[in-house]
Amino acid sequence: MTYNLILLRHGNSVWNQANLFTGWVDVDLSDQGRAEAKRAGELLAESGLKPDVLFTSVLKRAINTAHIALDQIDRNWIPTIRSWRLNERHYGALQGLDKAETLEKYGPELFQTWRRSFDVPPPAIEDDNKYSQAHDERYAGLGAALPKTECLKDVLVRMMPYWEEAIAPELTSGKTVLVTAHGNSLRALVKHLDGISDDEIAELNIPTGIPLHYKLDANLRPLVRGGEYLDPEAAAAGAAAVANQGKK
Amino acid sequence: MTYNLILLRHGNSVWNQANLFTGWVDVDLSDQGRAEAKRAGELLAESGLKPDVLFTSVLKRAINTAHIALDQIDRNWIPTIRSWRLNERHYGALQGLDKAETLEKYGPELFQTWRRSFDVPPPAIEDDNKYSQAHDERYAGLGAALPKTECLKDVLVRMMPYWEEAIAPELTSGKTVLVTAHGNSLRALVKHLDGISDDEIAELNIPTGIPLHYKLDANLRPLVRGGEYLDPEAAAAGAAAVANQGKK
Repeated sequence: MTYNLILLRHGNSVWNQANLFTGWVDVDLSDQGRAEAKRAGELLAESGLKPDVLFTSVLKRAINTAHIALDQIDRNWIPTIRSWRLNERHYGALQGLDKAETLEKYGPELFQTWRRSFDVPPPAIEDDNKYSQAHDERYAGLGAALPKTECLKDVLVRMMPYWEEAIAPELTSGKTVLVTAHGNSLRALVKHLDGISDDEIAELNIPTGIPLHYKLDANLRPLVRGGEYLDPEAAAAGAAAVANQGKK
Repeated sequence: MTYNLILLRHGNSVWNQANLFTGWVDVDLSDQGRAEAKRAGELLAESGLKPDVLFTSVLKRAINTAHIALDQIDRNWIPTIRSWRLNERHYGALQGLDKAETLEKYGPELFQTWRRSFDVPPPAIEDDNKYSQAHDERYAGLGAALPKTECLKDVLVRMMPYWEEAIAPELTSGKTVLVTAHGNSLRALVKHLDGISDDEIAELNIPTGIPLHYKLDANLRPLVRGGEYLDPEAAAAGAAAVANQGKK
């Protein structure tokens, strides 16, 4: 038995365009991002893959990416489950800051550590920062578990129970699963799926808007390491562009 | 304790515009319908009502109405549950037919019976009719329970268990519930809520795109019979327009 998992990183957002750190700030897609989502739906249509269930974060750039993509294949009727555990990495006190200015202010070493180290989070955000989620009702149930900053390891720790308890059972019941989420929540999932080491994960970039198809075996291990992008050429170009983020 | 239920009938669809019987055919909103959905979201914003959970049918005109309306109040992140039990009434062999032509062909008496009688369904649709749902995978689990035609009583019978088992528990847990559905599934629900007789329900028309707010008591009985439209004047005009449907 082979199981089908499709990962989709949301398209360009208004803050991607403005070169700001976003994290848990609920920023919408840009027009470019909406076009990417539509293209993702066209790629799904060409592939013949038919998601039976959708998982997203609780952030609108992922929710809207899924809505636009699934609309292209007339499948917005599939069951939809949303969880903060698929949210982007919380960027701490960097949320809302300009990436180029942050690079200039703190220097390339600290900047790159915050962006790509496995286990060093940025400084925590204060509750009274306007980009804090301390007063966002969608996270009211989290209480003290609400992140104030996260490194990739933190994302892995909060995402993995959701993978095991919510997503994996849908896969092993034979359903084709679509996960529409974010650069770092998907990097954490790919790290797990492909068994990527803590050091190597820094180099992995996931492009926006291009569905990544994993065929999984009975133990939910990939048949092809790294999976298969539905548009491999665009994926390679997109990953390179992500790697260059922050450089003006 | 008072509970908050908001009912929202989807806006104008492409087939409403073309004056065709729609039923379970999965027709999208027209531009007018999208504008109505946006207006519904603005009315929700003005009211201060904040839905905690969304129920929709599995038809895109209801799904997209909810998506557009909730986008206006930044609440597309709320849990969303979709069920065929909230679908429009199945219009049987009339699905896809022109309303004015049907009126002319069968006469006003039969036409009005099919549209508004409580317990006389239109003729059943054949499985090989292109507007049948016999081969639509979203209903594959229904088997022999898949409707081939429905009267309003049939809608009530298939909707009520869902009301009792899925929607009512969310209300009594204190959540504000939004139900985005269709003319006849909402008429069936309103019939139940307001205790409208089988004869009187024929006269009840629910306008499109205007949220209808019910405050419910501990027994889920309305504090105000008929609920309160968030835009009462527009609702009265809209209900009159629905009553005139089919007349060219």
